[in-house]
Amino acid sequence: MEKGLFITIEGSDGSGKSTQIALLKDYLESKGFVVLTTREPGGTNIGEKIREIILDKNNIEMDSMTEALLYAASRAQHVAEKIVPALERGEIVICDRFIDSSIAYQGYGRNLGDCVRIINEYAVRGCMPDITFLMKMDPGVGKSRIKEEDADRLEREKLEFHQKVYAGYEEIEKIYDRIVGIDATGTIEEISVQIRSHIDRVLNEK
Amino acid sequence: MEKGLFITIEGSDGSGKSTQIALLKDYLESKGFVVLTTREPGGTNIGEKIREIILDKNNIEMDSMTEALLYAASRAQHVAEKIVPALERGEIVICDRFIDSSIAYQGYGRNLGDCVRIINEYAVRGCMPDITFLMKMDPGVGKSRIKEEDADRLEREKLEFHQKVYAGYEEIEKIYDRIVGIDATGTIEEISVQIRSHIDRVLNEK
Repeated sequence: MEKGLFITIEGSDGSGKSTQIALLKDYLESKGFVVLTTREPGGTNIGEKIREIILDKNNIEMDSMTEALLYAASRAQHVAEKIVPALERGEIVICDRFIDSSIAYQGYGRNLGDCVRIINEYAVRGCMPDITFLMKMDPGVGKSRIKEEDADRLEREKLEFHQKVYAGYEEIEKIYDRIVGIDATGTIEEISVQIRSHIDRVLNEK
Repeated sequence: MEKGLFITIEGSDGSGKSTQIALLKDYLESKGFVVLTTREPGGTNIGEKIREIILDKNNIEMDSMTEALLYAASRAQHVAEKIVPALERGEIVICDRFIDSSIAYQGYGRNLGDCVRIINEYAVRGCMPDITFLMKMDPGVGKSRIKEEDADRLEREKLEFHQKVYAGYEEIEKIYDRIVGIDATGTIEEISVQIRSHIDRVLNEK
């Protein structure tokens, strides 16, 4: 491929994103592609430092706009330092959370609205995903899979917050053609098959 | 005063901002006002953590958009946690650097353009300075006052960068009525007199 392929995976925590990313990576590598898997927030040295601030359980006074801007800052670094260079080498990049997480969590969940999309479009400077898998599952189910003592600052939010985030994801799924909803309540194998069939189609079209 | 007064001081490093802030604080306190002095980046616990990332000499790989977003994040927290509450208590807030620093350093100095203003207007959510003093001095002079080994990541930039920043400051001085240019080449006392006369006028009009 001349310009790589940029895949993102979105959805609630506990919806099985990591498992599916690992399976998709294996699948694509078995077809001979070079695959880079990465995650947000983080993915770079500077991004990891930003991630520490965002997820620190002690930062309870964090303003929601600060949170949104920190995510955007981490993303800008991630795009510039890691994602764009890999795509320019012709690799496939699979990223665990990207711009849609900000729109869903901060735009909808924190009621910051459309400014989150605008800020993040500046942050990514045109580097948007080719395809985004949205793992769809009742947010109460995903939340129950995470132990309270292991939860970070965002995971500790009330179920009501997670429901607003989920409703946000469903809204943006309607807006962007690149977003493919995946029924995340099935078995690991069933979900993996759904994802592979979409990817195969995209690769054939390239 | 019912809603306080928000003063910011801008200009190159080494232009004497800190000295003038201390003098202005003393002057206003002697008139019976409650004065809060603060600085950017930083001013809050979360902001100080962000400041560490921004100014760390080792973060040489930092993307310019990341830098701009980190400043905006620190500012959002600063406004929400410290500046707005003080203004609501009727205090005078004097802040060392604010939105104009981002416009000058990232918008002009780093060539990011007008998106820096847009992002920062979201960050401050309407909390704009009532008056801004711009300390005007050839950037080569300010730079020569800072020892190389004490310089942080931004201070280490080449003179050419600082000249672009200065040109940016001169541009925005023309755009915003709230910005008052101060000749910063005079003596400490001369500069202080200029600042006081402006402040007295603003306080009389309130």
